[in-house]
Amino acid sequence: MQIGIVGLGLIGGSLGLDLKAQGHEILGVSRRDRTCTVAVERGVADRASTELSSLSEADVIFLCTPIGQLQTTVEQLIPHLQPSTILTDVGSVKGSVVSTIAPLWPNFVGGHPMSGTHENGVDAAVRDLFVGNPYVLTPIDSTPPASVETIGHLVTAIGSKLLHCDPESHDRAVAWISHLPVMISTSLIAACLAETDPAVFDLAQALASTGFRDTSRVGGGNPELGRMMAEYNQSALLQTLHQYRSKLDQIIGQVETGEWSALTETFEATRSARPKFLKES
Amino acid sequence: MQIGIVGLGLIGGSLGLDLKAQGHEILGVSRRDRTCTVAVERGVADRASTELSSLSEADVIFLCTPIGQLQTTVEQLIPHLQPSTILTDVGSVKGSVVSTIAPLWPNFVGGHPMSGTHENGVDAAVRDLFVGNPYVLTPIDSTPPASVETIGHLVTAIGSKLLHCDPESHDRAVAWISHLPVMISTSLIAACLAETDPAVFDLAQALASTGFRDTSRVGGGNPELGRMMAEYNQSALLQTLHQYRSKLDQIIGQVETGEWSALTETFEATRSARPKFLKES
Repeated sequence: MQIGIVGLGLIGGSLGLDLKAQGHEILGVSRRDRTCTVAVERGVADRASTELSSLSEADVIFLCTPIGQLQTTVEQLIPHLQPSTILTDVGSVKGSVVSTIAPLWPNFVGGHPMSGTHENGVDAAVRDLFVGNPYVLTPIDSTPPASVETIGHLVTAIGSKLLHCDPESHDRAVAWISHLPVMISTSLIAACLAETDPAVFDLAQALASTGFRDTSRVGGGNPELGRMMAEYNQSALLQTLHQYRSKLDQIIGQVETGEWSALTETFEATRSARPKFLKES
Repeated sequence: MQIGIVGLGLIGGSLGLDLKAQGHEILGVSRRDRTCTVAVERGVADRASTELSSLSEADVIFLCTPIGQLQTTVEQLIPHLQPSTILTDVGSVKGSVVSTIAPLWPNFVGGHPMSGTHENGVDAAVRDLFVGNPYVLTPIDSTPPASVETIGHLVTAIGSKLLHCDPESHDRAVAWISHLPVMISTSLIAACLAETDPAVFDLAQALASTGFRDTSRVGGGNPELGRMMAEYNQSALLQTLHQYRSKLDQIIGQVETGEWSALTETFEATRSARPKFLKES
């Protein structure tokens, strides 16, 4: 199969490495010449170009640009495409993406590989990045079932655990387990920064240990990624934020009034629930 | 020096191992016969007994019981003590402990070793548990300086990083970096459990990854420890909870009104602030 990849960063580059190893012919597109050169050198792509027109023969194209560039990329790509070409993306939000791209190109399958590292760029691309991790496809009524099947075969072949759901369910689920944690972790660091007693602030820094390290980790991440989650998943994120705040208020109330038994029951419920959210591995 | 240790769990047992290795004579006390036997077998103590009266000759006594048992322990211990005996505790809250114990025994030095593992009991005791970790002493005006110095020497000798502060500053600092994280992490899990759509709930569990794992970790911990933080550090914890809630509200407001630049600025501030809370290591 001839497979195009637009955006040769961590995800696009790693897809290239794995799909090329499966025997597919990989055509890479990047805005930067250097990335194209490195991509071919590293075996991410058979050929790479800065021109979207180089993808006119592709059977499938993975769109691996930032979400904010997706619409423009597709609009510039469409004049070069055959109607049979399947487009799929890798964005971490699906509702707004699918509702924007599907009307432009009905043969579009929304996708989200739940894989990543802290590295970025084509140099960070690695083999087997997707092995054992969920890869969600979010077809809608108008999505051709054969296209969903084609993308499903490709991502299963590189080791992903394939899941299907509608774009809205996807966005609500990732709001809970990915986007909400970023907001509450950010709020933790921001609240600490508001401590006005310098002695207490310095002491807090000196005493911070694994509990603070873990709870604050995703709040100390990439600001652009945080903004993207909020901007493109605004409605689902707000729903979870409001539900979170009401649980927080409940706990604040229990601490205020000294309802220690009720508080202990909450801790017991969360302790027994947490393992169900963790991968067996 | 003759050193008594009341409560031979992870902290008491590990203190025994390290202090014995420093050449001190260790007298252990536990409520359970089996713990006393294991403590002597494992080299945690030279002798161990279920009787507090066995500590009448001790120069220093580390009180390593749960915070809720401290007052009763000290009251039962006092009839056996010489006035020169220094008492010190290892509780993770200091204001309420110091204000309860110092009036009973003025020769008391509040202490808090910031060390631990997920294990409990005498079997979990290990050498070098305290190496490189903060050990906070919280003397008050009435605490004999020589006693503070004695405890300081002992904990420095076993590798701790010694810090001094007043009990209230300690409690505010640990509220920020230890107790508040537990409450917000618990609220995250509790909020997820409130999702009413079973399809979204199942999907959230399937998609949860490192971000959720880290942010939820301390909310899935020991319920009794969580309750203890809230009960004994109620006032400092409430202060941090309210400041946290106001930062959270600010972020919710920014997401609601789409103030993406302001939100990005918050993310940038927290990204650059977080490393200062993390140990170089």
